[in-house]
Amino acid sequence: MTSRNILSPAFILVAPQMGENIGAAARVMANFALFDLRLVAPRDGWPNAAAETMSAGALPGVVNVQVFETVEAAIADCALVIATTARPREMTKPVLGGAQAVERMRSVDGRAGVLFGAERAGLPNEAVTLSDAILSFPVNAQFASLNLAQAVALVAHGWAEAMATGVPEKFDVEILPPASRENLIGMMEQFEAELDRAGFFFPEEKRAVVVQNLRNTFTRAGWNEQEVRTFRGAIKALALGRGKARVIRED
Amino acid sequence: MTSRNILSPAFILVAPQMGENIGAAARVMANFALFDLRLVAPRDGWPNAAAETMSAGALPGVVNVQVFETVEAAIADCALVIATTARPREMTKPVLGGAQAVERMRSVDGRAGVLFGAERAGLPNEAVTLSDAILSFPVNAQFASLNLAQAVALVAHGWAEAMATGVPEKFDVEILPPASRENLIGMMEQFEAELDRAGFFFPEEKRAVVVQNLRNTFTRAGWNEQEVRTFRGAIKALALGRGKARVIRED
Repeated sequence: MTSRNILSPAFILVAPQMGENIGAAARVMANFALFDLRLVAPRDGWPNAAAETMSAGALPGVVNVQVFETVEAAIADCALVIATTARPREMTKPVLGGAQAVERMRSVDGRAGVLFGAERAGLPNEAVTLSDAILSFPVNAQFASLNLAQAVALVAHGWAEAMATGVPEKFDVEILPPASRENLIGMMEQFEAELDRAGFFFPEEKRAVVVQNLRNTFTRAGWNEQEVRTFRGAIKALALGRGKARVIRED
Repeated sequence: MTSRNILSPAFILVAPQMGENIGAAARVMANFALFDLRLVAPRDGWPNAAAETMSAGALPGVVNVQVFETVEAAIADCALVIATTARPREMTKPVLGGAQAVERMRSVDGRAGVLFGAERAGLPNEAVTLSDAILSFPVNAQFASLNLAQAVALVAHGWAEAMATGVPEKFDVEILPPASRENLIGMMEQFEAELDRAGFFFPEEKRAVVVQNLRNTFTRAGWNEQEVRTFRGAIKALALGRGKARVIRED
């Protein structure tokens, strides 16, 4: 057992529409001492006057905002990614309650990122696929649509409440830190590119769903950096050796 | 041990200013299947078009709204009253975290009411004084002002999360149900009226703070109906007997 620092999570709003919601999200993040806000392709660009008005002083300057073009870029440095969604997804991801999600975020060795979907559409499947787990709130099925900033508030509060009870100890220091999401995504992209070249995705219409299934499997596995490197090496070896393998089989 | 029904709490907004916040509060209450919203002296009257717009369909009709002139009237049927406030109060009330507050709300025999203050001023001291306990969120001291609807969201979610884990058993069915807040307030008012008549509040400038201290003591004690009746009878007896007591002492 050793005590350790816990990195504060990044909150990532994917394609947010209303500046008011971005501002309200920033305000409640500041309320709970969270300062890493990331926007993926905000509809109305950035900066946004409505966001500043609603932020009650959190924007600009108290909460740090970064803007990204893609979810992949926004989560590149994350060791754990949690997708918030009320909608059931046909994906085999662990579904966590708020407290469970926060405990995973607190116990990961690296930065956690929490994805929040846009007001109308929620998170796109591709973003959920890149996540380790789904965080779902116990909402009334007859009135399930949570306001974006309210969802941010619930996770921010859950984090602060858990942090107020102290830093959890890490029991097994032998476990290697998880791979960064950037490296995991790079690994998956490399794998998919090689599979493309190998003609694996046939027929082409099924490519998207097959990629989704693969990515779900990979993100669930909890790869560490060493495992990512090993797997990437294995893919590369397979790709380089493909011609040879065929030759051998054709012998 | 016996299983039992749990009444859903009432959420009471005291002197709310912005209709938008009332609407957002109603929306998130509906998200978490809470439908008893009470407004004490809303600044812009009721109904309120901005509230309906922000409620995303919760108003009118999904969440039930009642309007009251006083906090006392709004909490009259409550067996437990929780005051949400981030500000430290010079009152000897238990201060609970969100989860603790919800557990008290779930274990009380009767309806719980949760008081939320106005946007700028928060809850007046008189309202906190009428409460059994303070619910305080672990906010960043440098950025402590929670949006009203966000505070509502945190309590609503805490309630739903606890309810999703099942109904707690009541271990001691012998304990009498707590007095309604109406009866407790009536008892305190009767006591204060008699103290006034007895010249207890001297000098008059100190009346408010002395009443506040008395009420804090009474609300902390967890009176049941039988105890309230007994105490009221005792006050009445003292008041009726005052003249006699004087006569006796003057003998």
